[in-house]
Amino acid sequence: MTRVLLATRNQKKLVELRRIVQAEELGLEVVGLSDVPEFPEAPETGATFEENAVAKAADAARETGLPAVADDSGIEIDALNGMPGVLSARWAGRHGDDQANLDLVLGQLADVPDERRGGAFVSAAALVLPDGTETVVRGEWRGRIIREERGGNGFGYDPIFVPEGETRTSAELSPEEKDADSHRGRALRLLLPSLRKLAE
Amino acid sequence: MTRVLLATRNQKKLVELRRIVQAEELGLEVVGLSDVPEFPEAPETGATFEENAVAKAADAARETGLPAVADDSGIEIDALNGMPGVLSARWAGRHGDDQANLDLVLGQLADVPDERRGGAFVSAAALVLPDGTETVVRGEWRGRIIREERGGNGFGYDPIFVPEGETRTSAELSPEEKDADSHRGRALRLLLPSLRKLAE
Repeated sequence: MTRVLLATRNQKKLVELRRIVQAEELGLEVVGLSDVPEFPEAPETGATFEENAVAKAADAARETGLPAVADDSGIEIDALNGMPGVLSARWAGRHGDDQANLDLVLGQLADVPDERRGGAFVSAAALVLPDGTETVVRGEWRGRIIREERGGNGFGYDPIFVPEGETRTSAELSPEEKDADSHRGRALRLLLPSLRKLAE
Repeated sequence: MTRVLLATRNQKKLVELRRIVQAEELGLEVVGLSDVPEFPEAPETGATFEENAVAKAADAARETGLPAVADDSGIEIDALNGMPGVLSARWAGRHGDDQANLDLVLGQLADVPDERRGGAFVSAAALVLPDGTETVVRGEWRGRIIREERGGNGFGYDPIFVPEGETRTSAELSPEEKDADSHRGRALRLLLPSLRKLAE
């Protein structure tokens, strides 16, 4: 079976990515970074999600010789001109403190009225083959930012994001509900044609 | 002598505004909010500097019967899609903590390379007359965001902003040097024709 590497060290993203890819029964063996020898990772300094996703997947494909899928994602908030964007993971100033990032957004938006609290989760997903072939796609999930956190599923900004057509936050959706609509689910489904080709 | 009210409770802004207006010898008597009876102030919830500046000046003119000048200003950073913008004063989540705001920007930009660290100080200055006549102008001051603070003059983001054509931060300029080039100086000079008309 063809192996494909999911190139992320974020355990929660890895679980989501693996769940989505496996649900599609592509006939691909999904391996994580813990299944391959360690290699140095470049910092994410791109100006776009696409740039970062391609860079991560290309690094991983080059270092391991495997086709590699990587995601770069975040939240774009209208009242913040589309930020945190590529800085979503380090919005509060240091990397990966979900609670601090979320608290900061709530503080920044405290005086922003309801009609200007729109935003979107965005995911760029890239597949890079060992020969350097790149595919990159983007999934978006529109919604609005509420005023206090709710829900214990998900991660990142999920507890303050209510998707369009929902009353629950994305942290109150089941994993399967989230995958069906989420930015990451949409992006990965856009990659399926390329992944199917790989499996053949 | 015609009196004009500088409608700000920010002492450091008041000093700058008063210095710039008085340097022009317009023949206007400049009064501050401490010289007039207190009135309730609406929160700054506009989506633009212009909206906030006009709202502040209009409130003050209506409440006091004096022509009122107000400023709304902040820093627009390219790598943050023009934010903090109207949220400059509460960027770290609560209002008016200059040090927290500045530290947060430095953290957010930590991985942003030098060629993407451009930005601008922006000031919208509004003059509103008791009859409701509004004039609003915008001054900009381009520069770049450095990686650590320098200088003890100024306030807000001055210690991390190096104006174009300078090697010093705006917190290392003298007050007179700052006024000559700054966003607030430029905006207020754009208001001079309207202020002169008022003095006649």
